[in-house]
Amino acid sequence: MRLKRTASAETPESAPAGVRDERKQRTRKALLDAALILLDGERSFSSLSLREVAKVAGVVPAAFYRHFTGMDELGMSLVDDSFHTLHQMMRGARSAPLPPANLVARSVETFLLYAQAHRLHFQFIAKERVSGSSSVRLAIRKELRLWTSELATDLAPFPKLKGFNGDDLRMMAGLVVNAMMGATELILDADINDAAELARIHQLAQKQLMLIFLGAAQWKSKPAQ
Amino acid sequence: MRLKRTASAETPESAPAGVRDERKQRTRKALLDAALILLDGERSFSSLSLREVAKVAGVVPAAFYRHFTGMDELGMSLVDDSFHTLHQMMRGARSAPLPPANLVARSVETFLLYAQAHRLHFQFIAKERVSGSSSVRLAIRKELRLWTSELATDLAPFPKLKGFNGDDLRMMAGLVVNAMMGATELILDADINDAAELARIHQLAQKQLMLIFLGAAQWKSKPAQ
Repeated sequence: MRLKRTASAETPESAPAGVRDERKQRTRKALLDAALILLDGERSFSSLSLREVAKVAGVVPAAFYRHFTGMDELGMSLVDDSFHTLHQMMRGARSAPLPPANLVARSVETFLLYAQAHRLHFQFIAKERVSGSSSVRLAIRKELRLWTSELATDLAPFPKLKGFNGDDLRMMAGLVVNAMMGATELILDADINDAAELARIHQLAQKQLMLIFLGAAQWKSKPAQ
Repeated sequence: MRLKRTASAETPESAPAGVRDERKQRTRKALLDAALILLDGERSFSSLSLREVAKVAGVVPAAFYRHFTGMDELGMSLVDDSFHTLHQMMRGARSAPLPPANLVARSVETFLLYAQAHRLHFQFIAKERVSGSSSVRLAIRKELRLWTSELATDLAPFPKLKGFNGDDLRMMAGLVVNAMMGATELILDADINDAAELARIHQLAQKQLMLIFLGAAQWKSKPAQ
């Protein structure tokens, strides 16, 4: 049974609108968090049932439908939330006046600390990017392509990258995104209390990005035919 | 119930030894193939039951135990098989006299055609690398590290890479492996009949590797402290 999301279905309580809105947001967040918590192990998103997500969130299944039409829509919201925070971080990194000398090292550091702080979201992306339900997987792929394009746009003004055409800048950005996701997977598998291992992963990722940028400074895109 | 694998449990049929061995190998392969087929969609390995794998393979559950102590051991065999074929391919690539001029492009081509031909195995690796049961996931990670080390050893003799120490060669090899796995994931998601899309992914991966090698030719590892 799928309840249509109507005004009456969404606000069944006889409470003031502000309180209802706040409560509604809280329940919505509880459902999203419940899914992330259930995924923190060997489970994959497509194995989760609406019923167990509702149970972990502490609501009855019918309440689920006041927020999402089904698990697919909840999955999409998780994708949106995961990448929303990523875009925020990238905007933050862009506005910070970084000294170009260690721009790469600092960007890697910022990203990986961010991934560590948003462990469950990144675990969701890492897992469902490959094994998720088709709609969630495609949504993640789309977001990764957007992230790649955004990064390519950020890279375009760098004088050392003036040998690149647009396609090749996206190719390079794709390599960077892949390396960052690879490092994120290592971070997700590491013991969060093992500072030496985390430092090793950070250093590895920094070197990989420096290697990419070294190559990029030598790159000459072929002129369009 | 877990049957101990004993000689009597393994050879219950009153047939000549050669026939029994052949039949046994056939059943073992049928079980491994059944798991791969069940994984060709949204399922993850940890969601598979021994019972359904046996059913798809056309054997009773008790027969399963003549080949594997449980799903974990079957998972390990899938990891072994997947990487066995990969190592074979790398050995093949190493012995082929490739002109260095387009070594990178040809290696990428060989690898991706290979991944396309072994779609189910690579899909298993790509999925379970992140979301698998802990033991399968750790086994895949270990194999990926071995692959990375093997590649680093292969790269060491190249004159252009003489600026690298051992750690940094593995760092570079890790970047290459990541880029190849990234391209493999794109291949797995592509329509196998869409030749233009496959060609686009091949070209993207070739450029990414060329970019890495351009950077590598400039790399200078810091001396050990």
